[in-house]
Amino acid sequence: MNSFSVTILGSSSALPTAQRFPTSQVVRFNEQLFLVDCGEGAQIQLRKFGFKMGRINHIFISHLHGDHIYGLPGMISSLVLYGKKGELHIHAHSDLQLMMEGMMKFMNEITDLKVIYHPLNFRRTSVIFEDRKIRITSFPLKHRVSCCGFLFQELPTELHLDKHALERYDVPVSQRSNIKNGADLILAGGSVIPNKELTLPANPTRSYAFCTDTIFKKDIVSIIAGADLLYHEATFSGDLADLARKTFHSTSVQAAELAKLAGVKKLVIGHFSSRYKSVSSLLEEARAIFPETLAANDGDCYDL
Amino acid sequence: MNSFSVTILGSSSALPTAQRFPTSQVVRFNEQLFLVDCGEGAQIQLRKFGFKMGRINHIFISHLHGDHIYGLPGMISSLVLYGKKGELHIHAHSDLQLMMEGMMKFMNEITDLKVIYHPLNFRRTSVIFEDRKIRITSFPLKHRVSCCGFLFQELPTELHLDKHALERYDVPVSQRSNIKNGADLILAGGSVIPNKELTLPANPTRSYAFCTDTIFKKDIVSIIAGADLLYHEATFSGDLADLARKTFHSTSVQAAELAKLAGVKKLVIGHFSSRYKSVSSLLEEARAIFPETLAANDGDCYDL
Repeated sequence: MNSFSVTILGSSSALPTAQRFPTSQVVRFNEQLFLVDCGEGAQIQLRKFGFKMGRINHIFISHLHGDHIYGLPGMISSLVLYGKKGELHIHAHSDLQLMMEGMMKFMNEITDLKVIYHPLNFRRTSVIFEDRKIRITSFPLKHRVSCCGFLFQELPTELHLDKHALERYDVPVSQRSNIKNGADLILAGGSVIPNKELTLPANPTRSYAFCTDTIFKKDIVSIIAGADLLYHEATFSGDLADLARKTFHSTSVQAAELAKLAGVKKLVIGHFSSRYKSVSSLLEEARAIFPETLAANDGDCYDL
Repeated sequence: MNSFSVTILGSSSALPTAQRFPTSQVVRFNEQLFLVDCGEGAQIQLRKFGFKMGRINHIFISHLHGDHIYGLPGMISSLVLYGKKGELHIHAHSDLQLMMEGMMKFMNEITDLKVIYHPLNFRRTSVIFEDRKIRITSFPLKHRVSCCGFLFQELPTELHLDKHALERYDVPVSQRSNIKNGADLILAGGSVIPNKELTLPANPTRSYAFCTDTIFKKDIVSIIAGADLLYHEATFSGDLADLARKTFHSTSVQAAELAKLAGVKKLVIGHFSSRYKSVSSLLEEARAIFPETLAANDGDCYDL
């Protein structure tokens, strides 16, 4: 099975606290590390939690607010100092490139790293990365500025061969790869053994949905439906729904309602306002609606 | 006596580690906080070590390398979110303003904070701040880009009145303030009592010198002479003197030699290369030359 996990690098909202850095996460899929948002100090957290920064080739930036991007100049600067070569792909609003070019000219190091910017589409759901094993999709959220969520979907693996059927029909080795990919078996006499008699189901595919910053947005339910893990912002507790609406954020109650509507397996809430010294009340009110809720802490790792 | 202390927010060189943030320090003088350099995460360290960020009105930036400035956008953004009003003075190379304006336009918050940039003079020693109690001077260092050190000097306090003399000469209250400032006493009959018979010496004045990043630079000795505390970079151990020279940095041996030449009371070395998991060998070789040496750790506070 592919290893697939999410580690929280920062779980605070705009103001970091002594315990919570601003937003950033690492999605680990086998040997690949995907960075989602890059708040100040993300590179420090990566080192603290034992990640090899050089394995990051793709960075996804939900929106251009400081608490989601101010870690980028230091991150890239350090990647250059570590001697990273090749390409680094940054998927973000096109304005990011302007900002970064202003910052990076003070880096002043010789670099073999080519930073490639890919503009996100903030109007419609778009596949922004895909290889044989994983697909990453951006989808519009609704915040004060253009903002996207990201869906990480493991792609179906090959079917498993049924050992007993292989023996029974004496399946030649040359055909096994085709059968794993769904082909039927045609015997020497011309009779056909259907694939389902030869195989067992593939591993179930898993998915992770990242949703921050956003107002409660019901129409994303169809996109994130059934996700194994949903990270949804819960900047405020339920009693501050008016403030949440006004600032285009969500409450813990709304995050839980969305998780329930989407039928996800597990919800992690985060992006907490620094006004909450403890987030236990936010967690409790979310659990009352959606019991499988956890509150993010920096350093927490969720295996899918 | 004025309270006067230095707290290390970051003691790493270009690459932060899990234990050491990039360069930043707070000089506390009574109720004023002066920030010296602002590497990534400085605002997080300030919160962690219990400082009230709103008390920072002056930031001094030695030079425009990322590990000394990438914490500025987040710092200013957070000051705005905290509702800081009035003026924030940033003393730095004039190019900093260009970079910051590119970053700050993504902050997108309404602000009552006016950021005022003051260009440093990288050619000669210059007084950059002075009030009744403290004077701050910049002086040229030698690095790959224009770079300054900073000297914080407590100004002489008033003389102390000698209680016995006050009684002996029945000094009127109206004259005491003048006497504290050095005036002689003229008695009714016209005879003069010299000030030195009426007063005891003022508190000794203290000073703190900050020197990073720089090649070994002997000509700063006259500027920092006799400082109570010298922070000097020691990026490398003595065996890497060639690399230090090539990268315009110093070794721990050179930092100690400079401290000895300048006759400072105490040396703190910092800005350690991330290659050193432990800096005890750097500390040992510095102490062999200048025994009153300490190795900086994030969070260390030195009272002057």
